[in-house]
Amino acid sequence: MPGNSFGQAFRFTTWGESHGPAIGCVVDGVPPRIPLAEEDIQLWLDRRRPGQSRFTSQRREPDRVKFFSGVFEGVTTGAPIALVIENVDQRPRDYSEIKDLFRPGHADYTYFKKYGVRDYRGGGRASARETAMRVAAGAIARKILGEAWGKRFAVRGALVQMGPHAIDRSRWDWAEVEQNPFWCPDPVAAKQWEGYLDGVRKARSSAGAVIEVVAEGVPPGLGEPVYDKLDADIAKALMSINAVKGVEIGDGFAGAARPGEEAHDEMRMVDGRAEFLSNRAGGALGGISTGQDIVARFAVKPTSSIPTPRRGVTVDGADVEVSVKGRHDPCVGIRAVPVGEAMIACVLADHWLRHKAQCG
Amino acid sequence: MPGNSFGQAFRFTTWGESHGPAIGCVVDGVPPRIPLAEEDIQLWLDRRRPGQSRFTSQRREPDRVKFFSGVFEGVTTGAPIALVIENVDQRPRDYSEIKDLFRPGHADYTYFKKYGVRDYRGGGRASARETAMRVAAGAIARKILGEAWGKRFAVRGALVQMGPHAIDRSRWDWAEVEQNPFWCPDPVAAKQWEGYLDGVRKARSSAGAVIEVVAEGVPPGLGEPVYDKLDADIAKALMSINAVKGVEIGDGFAGAARPGEEAHDEMRMVDGRAEFLSNRAGGALGGISTGQDIVARFAVKPTSSIPTPRRGVTVDGADVEVSVKGRHDPCVGIRAVPVGEAMIACVLADHWLRHKAQCG
Amino acid sequence: MPGNSFGQAFRFTTWGESHGPAIGCVVDGVPPRIPLAEEDIQLWLDRRRPGQSRFTSQRREPDRVKFFSGVFEGVTTGAPIALVIENVDQRPRDYSEIKDLFRPGHADYTYFKKYGVRDYRGGGRASARETAMRVAAGAIARKILGEAWGKRFAVRGALVQMGPHAIDRSRWDWAEVEQNPFWCPDPVAAKQWEGYLDGVRKARSSAGAVIEVVAEGVPPGLGEPVYDKLDADIAKALMSINAVKGVEIGDGFAGAARPGEEAHDEMRMVDGRAEFLSNRAGGALGGISTGQDIVARFAVKPTSSIPTPRRGVTVDGADVEVSVKGRHDPCVGIRAVPVGEAMIACVLADHWLRHKAQCG
Amino acid sequence: MPGNSFGQAFRFTTWGESHGPAIGCVVDGVPPRIPLAEEDIQLWLDRRRPGQSRFTSQRREPDRVKFFSGVFEGVTTGAPIALVIENVDQRPRDYSEIKDLFRPGHADYTYFKKYGVRDYRGGGRASARETAMRVAAGAIARKILGEAWGKRFAVRGALVQMGPHAIDRSRWDWAEVEQNPFWCPDPVAAKQWEGYLDGVRKARSSAGAVIEVVAEGVPPGLGEPVYDKLDADIAKALMSINAVKGVEIGDGFAGAARPGEEAHDEMRMVDGRAEFLSNRAGGALGGISTGQDIVARFAVKPTSSIPTPRRGVTVDGADVEVSVKGRHDPCVGIRAVPVGEAMIACVLADHWLRHKAQCG
Repeated sequence: MPGNSFGQAFRFTTWGESHGPAIGCVVDGVPPRIPLAEEDIQLWLDRRRPGQSRFTSQRREPDRVKFFSGVFEGVTTGAPIALVIENVDQRPRDYSEIKDLFRPGHADYTYFKKYGVRDYRGGGRASARETAMRVAAGAIARKILGEAWGKRFAVRGALVQMGPHAIDRSRWDWAEVEQNPFWCPDPVAAKQWEGYLDGVRKARSSAGAVIEVVAEGVPPGLGEPVYDKLDADIAKALMSINAVKGVEIGDGFAGAARPGEEAHDEMRMVDGRAEFLSNRAGGALGGISTGQDIVARFAVKPTSSIPTPRRGVTVDGADVEVSVKGRHDPCVGIRAVPVGEAMIACVLADHWLRHKAQCG
Repeated sequence: MPGNSFGQAFRFTTWGESHGPAIGCVVDGVPPRIPLAEEDIQLWLDRRRPGQSRFTSQRREPDRVKFFSGVFEGVTTGAPIALVIENVDQRPRDYSEIKDLFRPGHADYTYFKKYGVRDYRGGGRASARETAMRVAAGAIARKILGEAWGKRFAVRGALVQMGPHAIDRSRWDWAEVEQNPFWCPDPVAAKQWEGYLDGVRKARSSAGAVIEVVAEGVPPGLGEPVYDKLDADIAKALMSINAVKGVEIGDGFAGAARPGEEAHDEMRMVDGRAEFLSNRAGGALGGISTGQDIVARFAVKPTSSIPTPRRGVTVDGADVEVSVKGRHDPCVGIRAVPVGEAMIACVLADHWLRHKAQCG
Repeated sequence: MPGNSFGQAFRFTTWGESHGPAIGCVVDGVPPRIPLAEEDIQLWLDRRRPGQSRFTSQRREPDRVKFFSGVFEGVTTGAPIALVIENVDQRPRDYSEIKDLFRPGHADYTYFKKYGVRDYRGGGRASARETAMRVAAGAIARKILGEAWGKRFAVRGALVQMGPHAIDRSRWDWAEVEQNPFWCPDPVAAKQWEGYLDGVRKARSSAGAVIEVVAEGVPPGLGEPVYDKLDADIAKALMSINAVKGVEIGDGFAGAARPGEEAHDEMRMVDGRAEFLSNRAGGALGGISTGQDIVARFAVKPTSSIPTPRRGVTVDGADVEVSVKGRHDPCVGIRAVPVGEAMIACVLADHWLRHKAQCG
Repeated sequence: MPGNSFGQAFRFTTWGESHGPAIGCVVDGVPPRIPLAEEDIQLWLDRRRPGQSRFTSQRREPDRVKFFSGVFEGVTTGAPIALVIENVDQRPRDYSEIKDLFRPGHADYTYFKKYGVRDYRGGGRASARETAMRVAAGAIARKILGEAWGKRFAVRGALVQMGPHAIDRSRWDWAEVEQNPFWCPDPVAAKQWEGYLDGVRKARSSAGAVIEVVAEGVPPGLGEPVYDKLDADIAKALMSINAVKGVEIGDGFAGAARPGEEAHDEMRMVDGRAEFLSNRAGGALGGISTGQDIVARFAVKPTSSIPTPRRGVTVDGADVEVSVKGRHDPCVGIRAVPVGEAMIACVLADHWLRHKAQCG
């Protein structure tokens, strides 16, 4: 009932506030005898870490993850895996400025309305810092699925729109994604975005983004009709990420405008196997994976903490102007790429284990 | 773990196939002493029923819902409420044509891949007939919330895009929604859509749609950080509806293109209360309701059963052309409006009860 | 969160009141392609049915179960199976006598305190009639496990104590269990109990009972450390049956009195396999099945509805004498035997599917 | 689905192995604004700690609990509370002796059968060390219920049988419980048990125990019919504790032998309130609390690690004699007293929050 857990068969529970002593998670349901080292997690955490380019927050967090349980002599034991990351950048600070403030675009007001109290230090539980643990859980999900499905399995994400500027999909190159600070698959767009984002920062503004995640090598048959459809759980997983306001599978919203005879994936026998001739469905029909790539996109709103003054109110009922000092990510969507990948990996691992329960 | 239940505190489980003897659901967790009659459910079912205009399927189903438990002397008792609707249109038929067919855009292939068997009669469990039970559960959710939140509470939906044709939002009129066969809030668009949809049908094609649902009178504080955010659960609820491929909250995808200083809702004290000056967030910040209207949109793909021949395959591995005889909805999105409303009502009821558990 | 469902991977939800139109359940998570007919359920329901001897209630219920979904062409499809039994003995009656009464030993008072309303007809939701659906779900669980584990698998129950009179375990004969109206495995005790129970009835009293259930052919490895131990879930399953007040596994309470060197099952290699030399643990160590027989016992309190006047109160706060007219079971424990068997079967099916998810 | 969590609305998840770096738990669903300090937890942990008398294990663990999240400025925030205890006694050791051993009465064999791997150091996940976290979660549950129900609420436990020696209930004195090393409420029995237990240890044997837990000040109405009855969840909670093999509520097994007219609690109006004249039911009717004391008992088997050689086998299929060196608890049941109390507190907190969801 409380909301700090995700998944059913592959289930993780996270805890921790932005400026508490640490953040962590417990991953339960991991199959036994899977080789797992802290480095397998660290690898993915390092991709998400802030401070990697001039376009992301300069908070310096080494984000070293540690296992506290569930792994023994290099393999998982089937017991819950506890992961902890210390908050080393957590220096004593003066929070008096934001202590009584409801900042626009933040969860200050809603947390206060819900709980009547809030940990105001750096966003507390609502901070994007929590997403580090999603990446960690996702790394374990990848290991499980890699063992089960082999090398063909991969989950990769890319930024396909920065502010109002979309990529040209004809230039899509996965190799490019690792070459620029935006996870952008289009080298031309990546170049343009640099200038755009420098301009955004100079204008004391911020930018939103759209991210696309693709999972390859997923077998057909995953997904639980009718309420836990694979795409329904993906929608929930992505929408639960901070600042996300939209999710699409396959054609998504564009599909609503397409004529019926072009909207569905036709099939033909190819080398004795049923094959789809397109992938408008994004890899799921009736909520069950088709064996094609899973393709999902999600929209991230612009960073809410900006240096331009915005109108807010205080706990005590005074009008105030809020402007954020210090360096923040001008586009939080950039760092959402590894988080989106991780969430898709978690959904797939969960549905893989659930599928085995009933149909394995 | 299996997927035929929705919600946690307000929890319903549905069952039934398109051409089985009946469909039904069990609603558990309903607070006691709420006045409830079959008519309270029937009212909403009648809105969803097919055969109401020339633009929806002509299957004639009276869809009379019956209580089998949980209501006594006109009020809920706290025990589970079983609802059953007989499938009266379920005459013996010859299904030999589709028995061995994987139709494009349908779940035939994926159900077969998952379970190794499928009830091929009219889509079986994957049929949109299942959504009748979502509407029924939603009717109970509305009663619960009406008791709790009073008359200000309402959930209403409207079709805001038919095929490629969007409404003009400046003409939005809720009263208009009940006046045309499309739940369209824009009288001009409604008129145009008639011609458009007649053309679609003549072309043996079909059309997609975008639906917007608005919930008014929702108190602030609902939603469970961090994985069961209110908007995350809404995304799941809507994406679990047949043929839905995209979900947005508030600004949604458009918000990604907006500059940061325009993307967030500013606040001011008005008559001694903190108020938002806009509702780009769609009523949820940090996954918790703000007290503003909840605004969600979802995209429905075009009807997959069309008379134009499309390429499919058979269970036995033969290529075939599939074209659907008989009358089908040219735009299934129309009938998704009451379903989307119902799912939002169910999510709200669930989060209301969950909120009471921890914070009540 | 509400309590009308049991199990996680093999999950059933029941509904219905004693004197409503019907009772039913929805069984979700059933693996596909398992042959299943209504007769497979009816078989076990008939064992539980009242009116089979002069020692059980004479309520005449044919208890014909019907499938409403989830079974197609003789096999399960993976979709939820809805089972319904009409309440044919449900004639209009005068309930004015018990309408406002809190009867001692019944749930009248607690339901009223919890919900502020109650369906007073024949116990409503608290009636033992609900257990018919446990037996039905158990019948499906047996089919699942029979498919998975083969013919060696069986769950059998026996009454081992009637009132204060225990059986002599040295005379235990499973064949005898089906030969007497008490499910008693000791022919001598069965004979004596007839006279004892006739005396109980003449004295306008009632008797309790202890039931033992044994599950054979269960593979090692089932059970989820640490809170969902196999024996913990068995304890919950049995304690959830009406009128049950105690549960033991293996040695149970007697084991507390045993010296340590005699309390644990030693092991030896036999024909190249590790074998236990005794079964004091009752088939579970650390909450995981050992591969030995699962042995559980539960205590049922005497029937609370007796003709002897007992002191109760009314809703309006008046003292009353309550005595029950008509024929009731002098020992409800007799009919609890098939219910206990069914619940153990359900726990095993649930843990089998859960085991496959993580370790399959 | 995995088993390391307990409860639904008040939900905790534990992790950690006996000889890993730490053990911990995450408690989710805690209502906000409850004053909570580490000392509130430590208090109860200290009661459970080993090494407190010559009758419990001499492992020296300071067991200092630390909050890592969920508490801010002295009160709960509604966010998950992470608790961690370092395993300071965790020195490098030679485990080669037990590495390949299946010890009788331990979970070595079943964990290995289930997972194909096991953390053999000191019992790993199956160690009773895990119960420290139950006590910690129970301490938080007590705070929640103390806030909600006031000072009348208390959960207390006592050892009522040591090996074959039961207390004389007519001498029951709660004050005595804190005065002897056994939590024994009967001063005469406590004295006798000292000699008995010294004898047990000299004989290189061990002893079982029966514990009784009483919860006072519980309001009527808690418990979720029909599968999550309050007593069903108590049965599960207690049976999930290491080495527990039996659970009773109220009269329990003895009730089965009682005549019907003496088995149920009669009611009378007293000072204008309905009151029960006895408490054979142990505080629950129909699975819902009656407002009387909740009374539960559970049986703990004798310690399985004893110095007397017992027959076991190795992973590689060799017969061995197993005898345990070093000091172990001759009666693990003693330390189960605070654990049983804690579990009852957790069940009550969970059902309290669940009750508020539907009926609050």
